[in-house]
Amino acid sequence: MSNQNNQILKNTNAQILDEFNASIMFDKELYSQDIRGSIAHSQMLCEQGILTKEEQEAIEKGLLQVKEEIESGDFKFTLATEDIHMAVESRLTEIIGEPGKKLHTARSRNDQVATDFRLYVQEKSLSIKAQLKELIETFVNVASKHTETLIPGMTHLQHAQPLNFGYHMLAYANMFKRDFERFESSYERNNYSPLGSAALAGTPHNINRKSTSDKLGFYEPTNHAMDTVSDRDFALEILFNISTSMMHISRISEELITWSSYEFQFVRMSDEYATTSSIMPQKKNPDVPELLRGKTGRVYGNLISLLTVMKGLPLAYNKDTQEDKEGVFDSVKTIEISLSILNEVIKTMIVNKDKMQAACKVGHLSATDLADFLVQNQNMPFRTAYYITKDVVSHANSLNKDISELTIDEIKEANEDLKNVSEDIVMYLDLRNSMNARTSLGGTSTKQTQKQIENFKKWLKDN
Amino acid sequence: MSNQNNQILKNTNAQILDEFNASIMFDKELYSQDIRGSIAHSQMLCEQGILTKEEQEAIEKGLLQVKEEIESGDFKFTLATEDIHMAVESRLTEIIGEPGKKLHTARSRNDQVATDFRLYVQEKSLSIKAQLKELIETFVNVASKHTETLIPGMTHLQHAQPLNFGYHMLAYANMFKRDFERFESSYERNNYSPLGSAALAGTPHNINRKSTSDKLGFYEPTNHAMDTVSDRDFALEILFNISTSMMHISRISEELITWSSYEFQFVRMSDEYATTSSIMPQKKNPDVPELLRGKTGRVYGNLISLLTVMKGLPLAYNKDTQEDKEGVFDSVKTIEISLSILNEVIKTMIVNKDKMQAACKVGHLSATDLADFLVQNQNMPFRTAYYITKDVVSHANSLNKDISELTIDEIKEANEDLKNVSEDIVMYLDLRNSMNARTSLGGTSTKQTQKQIENFKKWLKDN
Amino acid sequence: MSNQNNQILKNTNAQILDEFNASIMFDKELYSQDIRGSIAHSQMLCEQGILTKEEQEAIEKGLLQVKEEIESGDFKFTLATEDIHMAVESRLTEIIGEPGKKLHTARSRNDQVATDFRLYVQEKSLSIKAQLKELIETFVNVASKHTETLIPGMTHLQHAQPLNFGYHMLAYANMFKRDFERFESSYERNNYSPLGSAALAGTPHNINRKSTSDKLGFYEPTNHAMDTVSDRDFALEILFNISTSMMHISRISEELITWSSYEFQFVRMSDEYATTSSIMPQKKNPDVPELLRGKTGRVYGNLISLLTVMKGLPLAYNKDTQEDKEGVFDSVKTIEISLSILNEVIKTMIVNKDKMQAACKVGHLSATDLADFLVQNQNMPFRTAYYITKDVVSHANSLNKDISELTIDEIKEANEDLKNVSEDIVMYLDLRNSMNARTSLGGTSTKQTQKQIENFKKWLKDN
Amino acid sequence: MSNQNNQILKNTNAQILDEFNASIMFDKELYSQDIRGSIAHSQMLCEQGILTKEEQEAIEKGLLQVKEEIESGDFKFTLATEDIHMAVESRLTEIIGEPGKKLHTARSRNDQVATDFRLYVQEKSLSIKAQLKELIETFVNVASKHTETLIPGMTHLQHAQPLNFGYHMLAYANMFKRDFERFESSYERNNYSPLGSAALAGTPHNINRKSTSDKLGFYEPTNHAMDTVSDRDFALEILFNISTSMMHISRISEELITWSSYEFQFVRMSDEYATTSSIMPQKKNPDVPELLRGKTGRVYGNLISLLTVMKGLPLAYNKDTQEDKEGVFDSVKTIEISLSILNEVIKTMIVNKDKMQAACKVGHLSATDLADFLVQNQNMPFRTAYYITKDVVSHANSLNKDISELTIDEIKEANEDLKNVSEDIVMYLDLRNSMNARTSLGGTSTKQTQKQIENFKKWLKDN
Repeated sequence: MSNQNNQILKNTNAQILDEFNASIMFDKELYSQDIRGSIAHSQMLCEQGILTKEEQEAIEKGLLQVKEEIESGDFKFTLATEDIHMAVESRLTEIIGEPGKKLHTARSRNDQVATDFRLYVQEKSLSIKAQLKELIETFVNVASKHTETLIPGMTHLQHAQPLNFGYHMLAYANMFKRDFERFESSYERNNYSPLGSAALAGTPHNINRKSTSDKLGFYEPTNHAMDTVSDRDFALEILFNISTSMMHISRISEELITWSSYEFQFVRMSDEYATTSSIMPQKKNPDVPELLRGKTGRVYGNLISLLTVMKGLPLAYNKDTQEDKEGVFDSVKTIEISLSILNEVIKTMIVNKDKMQAACKVGHLSATDLADFLVQNQNMPFRTAYYITKDVVSHANSLNKDISELTIDEIKEANEDLKNVSEDIVMYLDLRNSMNARTSLGGTSTKQTQKQIENFKKWLKDN
Repeated sequence: MSNQNNQILKNTNAQILDEFNASIMFDKELYSQDIRGSIAHSQMLCEQGILTKEEQEAIEKGLLQVKEEIESGDFKFTLATEDIHMAVESRLTEIIGEPGKKLHTARSRNDQVATDFRLYVQEKSLSIKAQLKELIETFVNVASKHTETLIPGMTHLQHAQPLNFGYHMLAYANMFKRDFERFESSYERNNYSPLGSAALAGTPHNINRKSTSDKLGFYEPTNHAMDTVSDRDFALEILFNISTSMMHISRISEELITWSSYEFQFVRMSDEYATTSSIMPQKKNPDVPELLRGKTGRVYGNLISLLTVMKGLPLAYNKDTQEDKEGVFDSVKTIEISLSILNEVIKTMIVNKDKMQAACKVGHLSATDLADFLVQNQNMPFRTAYYITKDVVSHANSLNKDISELTIDEIKEANEDLKNVSEDIVMYLDLRNSMNARTSLGGTSTKQTQKQIENFKKWLKDN
Repeated sequence: MSNQNNQILKNTNAQILDEFNASIMFDKELYSQDIRGSIAHSQMLCEQGILTKEEQEAIEKGLLQVKEEIESGDFKFTLATEDIHMAVESRLTEIIGEPGKKLHTARSRNDQVATDFRLYVQEKSLSIKAQLKELIETFVNVASKHTETLIPGMTHLQHAQPLNFGYHMLAYANMFKRDFERFESSYERNNYSPLGSAALAGTPHNINRKSTSDKLGFYEPTNHAMDTVSDRDFALEILFNISTSMMHISRISEELITWSSYEFQFVRMSDEYATTSSIMPQKKNPDVPELLRGKTGRVYGNLISLLTVMKGLPLAYNKDTQEDKEGVFDSVKTIEISLSILNEVIKTMIVNKDKMQAACKVGHLSATDLADFLVQNQNMPFRTAYYITKDVVSHANSLNKDISELTIDEIKEANEDLKNVSEDIVMYLDLRNSMNARTSLGGTSTKQTQKQIENFKKWLKDN
Repeated sequence: MSNQNNQILKNTNAQILDEFNASIMFDKELYSQDIRGSIAHSQMLCEQGILTKEEQEAIEKGLLQVKEEIESGDFKFTLATEDIHMAVESRLTEIIGEPGKKLHTARSRNDQVATDFRLYVQEKSLSIKAQLKELIETFVNVASKHTETLIPGMTHLQHAQPLNFGYHMLAYANMFKRDFERFESSYERNNYSPLGSAALAGTPHNINRKSTSDKLGFYEPTNHAMDTVSDRDFALEILFNISTSMMHISRISEELITWSSYEFQFVRMSDEYATTSSIMPQKKNPDVPELLRGKTGRVYGNLISLLTVMKGLPLAYNKDTQEDKEGVFDSVKTIEISLSILNEVIKTMIVNKDKMQAACKVGHLSATDLADFLVQNQNMPFRTAYYITKDVVSHANSLNKDISELTIDEIKEANEDLKNVSEDIVMYLDLRNSMNARTSLGGTSTKQTQKQIENFKKWLKDN
């Protein structure tokens, strides 16, 4: 190969390598955290007499200018600057000269990146919490309008017992409340400042980690430099929390899709949240919940990615960890937009009460009530009552009726042991009565549901 | 096909189907939780006047007998009984007759299984916490013996800065402490009683969920029946917590394996924790840490399994959820044995101080100290000091020395700007001085390390 | 601690360690492969003059006796023997004495385990292929009964176009055929014999790897000893193939569950494959397809487990790889039972033609035909025809009719541009005509469906 | 809320929704496949008399213009056009007017997207194969230079037996050859054309699927429209194939990292492929192999993502499937750059023969040879020889020697049974002899290695 070709090849390789090594194209996401961290660091260095007041002021002013340039779009990110930390520092030095080079005193890229990334995760944990709260409020609002709307409660996608639709909505409010608590808990557990850990072992400079920790809104500095620069537990936690939330979102999405089918017609997506077919003009497709359901895949993937990256890594820092950010950014963006969209979908969905209530008359939803009645009022053991109820169901089927529609005489015909059953039984088989009978704590009766709504309203005010 | 063959085929199919549907072969693991739950339920039913005192006593006595039969190995589990709940109840009814059939009053298999499984997860969360604490103590003990043992601190598996080995051990104590906190947090968040949720909507029976919750050691009953019977967040949380712990275990394992190589020889596994080759009699293999590292795979797999199962499930209960247990049991057993084994491995490993300390003399571990010295004492910007340090390193290489071995004259020769450098610099390049210079909070200096050990000892006493 | 306590502790630890290290409790699954491999090895050693004829005969007879003992249940597996290879060899030596110790000549546990495991995977690939073929045949049989049964074809779970149900069933036949091909392909790619690779580098003994390869049904010996003992690609491939098959199974399961709902009622599981509720006597739950769908989780988990284990392992053998088997065994058993069960479910399901056909009259399933008619017969651009079709759909909705029920006059009223439309259009809107119009290759028309059935029947005969 | 605010909110929501629904920002990657597909479709429509020659020519010319606009960067992608298919078609209609609207005749977005995506996967399968071949060639070239370079072969990261380094390199050539075969196999299995499947059931238009299939380089059209539009097996296969390849890459990366440590020093990354520390000027970090190892995480994640998406999806098309592409694009780019980088890393790495060979003298690498000698020449059973070897090893240790350095007298001292051992034994213990003794098929002897190299060279020429 000629020397010239050789050189071209070498340049191509160098470019591919830059592309491979550089993180700037995704970690620029962290620019504001990086600048916040650097300002805090410079202020502390000044407090400790490591930087003069003039130097610190120049640095801070310069950093704010860099920030402005980035936000206005004037800043050009290139592979050459490799990562956001280098990009900001180089530009700073261009602007302010010598003092810029002093900013990195008593700091390493290892603790700097750990700080930036943790600041990001902590900020996002708070904003996701706020979105979850909003979503919970939406579910509670929908619930409060439907505490008397009957819907067939299902297990195995089979009609089981009558619920009110408000109650069904509250099930999701409860799930998202647990999600809220998980984000809160991981926020608390990880709100410690990596800054000052340096490369892996701390620094001989006379720094004050408590000071930067305070400035950045952390509770305290972390305990151990080496652990800190190699720790990505906080990132795994947010990935897991997001996965669990998306799993919950996939469940309501599945229900919305099923409920939107011609067969169910329990709900209809508002026109903005359903789309039309490119070939079938008559269709309204629940694309939005389908895409929400599909997005579960990517957040699960991001979780397994980082778990894989971290497996078997020796201490302290290894370049493998550069792979920690894209997945977190992607999962964060996914949950943010998903929560936002789901919130609107739930707010604007059209609930078809008539279809829900009509569906309750299929499937003998009050069969358990019949069994319970026999246990409570006729003093039968549950297992016996269970078999008698089966006979009543069969009899109703033969009459082409739902058991909620049987007369007292029809009931008595069903089984020898019911010959003398009290007339009250008819009342027990009524669907609304059945729903309202479930008054146990956490049960579906309208009263219980309203009480749960009150509890949620209180919680929403307090959180 | 003849009728007879047809019948045989049908029987075969039936058997395969039983095998497919039944969970008894793994959920028997939950026998003690199931019996505890049933006793509490029967006591509550009695308090509420649903069972008579005699009935309750018969049930409780019967259940304790079943427990004894299981623990003595007399109980025969067969596919016919399908699941542990049915197995216990059938046997109970065999023993005590009629009252046994009343036990299932105001309860469904859905809330029963949710209760049993949650009891299991909660109990295991506590016992795993206890094991983590023990392991932390072991790391702290080893650390306290090695606060002055030099070891090359590495990043990228390259010598970076001198640490003390005690400090390195404390990095793991910190990881396992975070794990401890995660198990604690998920325990707290999930310590609510499912019992009384019934099938999906509560029950019309006059039950007292608070009473069973108290009896079973939960804080309160859960808020919403439908959510409760379909919720597996608590199971996902323990799977995630275990995954993170195993990830940490995989990291120390990787280090132990590397350190055990002929090239490193920093540690040696005690003879019990190293095995020999079936074909190479000279070998001592670090099988135990390798297997620990390998077991990370299965717990990651179990996490992704349950996440997959839960994706897109409509409310309330679906049979898919039967797949929730085996993975949790497997992950729990894996972490239990892994923590136990790792604890012994760390306790009994032989630390080769000489090799560790000799290794420190390779790789110019005090290079950062040189740079820091120039910044602090010669008032250079960090980036300038960095380049001068590079020259000293090159010069040392040309002399075939580590920079910690350079004389003041050799240092001065390395770069023009060092001509007048203070003699103190030699002291700064000393490896032990270098380690002890890192006095910042969380740094590696012996003093800082000792302080961290004290903090851990206090924590161990308080938790 | 007293010496005595110390000893007890040591014993406990030793036992836990044995439990941890030993694989015997799961790798006994490989007993028949281990014995087959050992017999082939001994025969080859004899051919090469390394064993005498007497020694070989003693070994072979001994091994067959061990096999019998295992199959009759007489053989006691204990942790002490560590793994199946040691268990068989020890017992052999007990039975035949000295010659037993010679069996391990020119072999290492590394190539032995690789051989056994690969034999297992290869055997299972063949038997799973056979099961897939049977399942395809079942789908084809059901399909051939329903080539004229109309069912609404869905996208987004919304009615889209009329299909015949046989055609829908064939979609699954196609999926499982691809699965069949994948198992075939991985079988072919991996059918090479590891035996004779020894520990990692081959052996100085004068062995004949081709001979053992032939005896064991492999195509050829593998190429490279070191690669062979550390290669688990064949195991990953079967895990992936099973994952893809289970994903297909989860899709038909989801459809069966939806179709079994009261709202759809397209199919009903035969009584054996639906179960009843412990509390709701009226219910028939599609537990079997739910559990099939749920089992997708575990096979995905097993795949990710082994991928995790293998990540970053240095050559050649590491103990981590002991974690390769349980997941494969579990996935194999899961797919075996799942294919077997699904086959029966499909065979025995009750198809409700009336419900399917009635459902076709909802949702304007022939809307695309209308658009296509306008394109073909009125020479309109597709996008224009699309918008006119929308008007016809709206008009039909206002008349409370499906477009398949519109008269020619009603059609003409819908849009200015249809004023002079040919009467033929009514025929095009007929649902059965619509289905039969899709005669393009791979389309749903009854004729095309029948042709596809013929192709499958040919394939089934040829494979 | 004022009407104005309401409107603003509505617009914001609409924008978020567009962002959520649109795939244009990532599926523009498919522009060339989309245009190729559309040209083929238009040509076929013309052949079938559905388009006039003029219309077809206008379409083809228009599409080529769109392509040019995209490639020159003139084309502006906006969320408004939703996806690449709509973007191309809208622009086409802008350019050529009415005929543009006819292009979508007898096609749906479902088969269009399936075609584009499959074309992409097929093209990439071929180019990845080419890269794998190049990489294999590199390994073979390195191998051919080192067939006599001794290196300690390891199991459990412990010295086991002497290899030549060329042999070690060939292990990787074998892995990547299997990868090559897997890409080949999935290419073959999936090279069938989706085009003409239409929405889900084929089309009544008189199309010729064979014609478009030929034009696009597929073997045949697919068999079943409904299966085809919902099938993503081909995407899963490439994700799995990439995962397996990256796993192999992670293994060589791990070895390169370990070998680059100060303790090993077997290889050194060339300066371009090692980077320096921002704080430790003396360091050369193997960042590139670390990042390669880390990137395993993302491709595993992408695989699990799509498996999750596909789980439980009913037929035919669902919007969830829109989530299929980003992961595949990301995995493809990851493997492309990784193969390219690894190829250079291997080509340019500096092999430190001296260190490798010196390391062979530690760990009694010829111990197995001693045992084998005793079996072959002294006719001992292997298990006996094994224990005698252990004694020799112990004796060598006590003399502070490797067994390869023992004299015949020293050997005889080690164990009673060696008193009369032949002097030849010394020769057997020589490290190079030991390596060269492993002449079995696939063994490490220089001759065997050279033969394997020859086989690879032949394969490279033939493929």
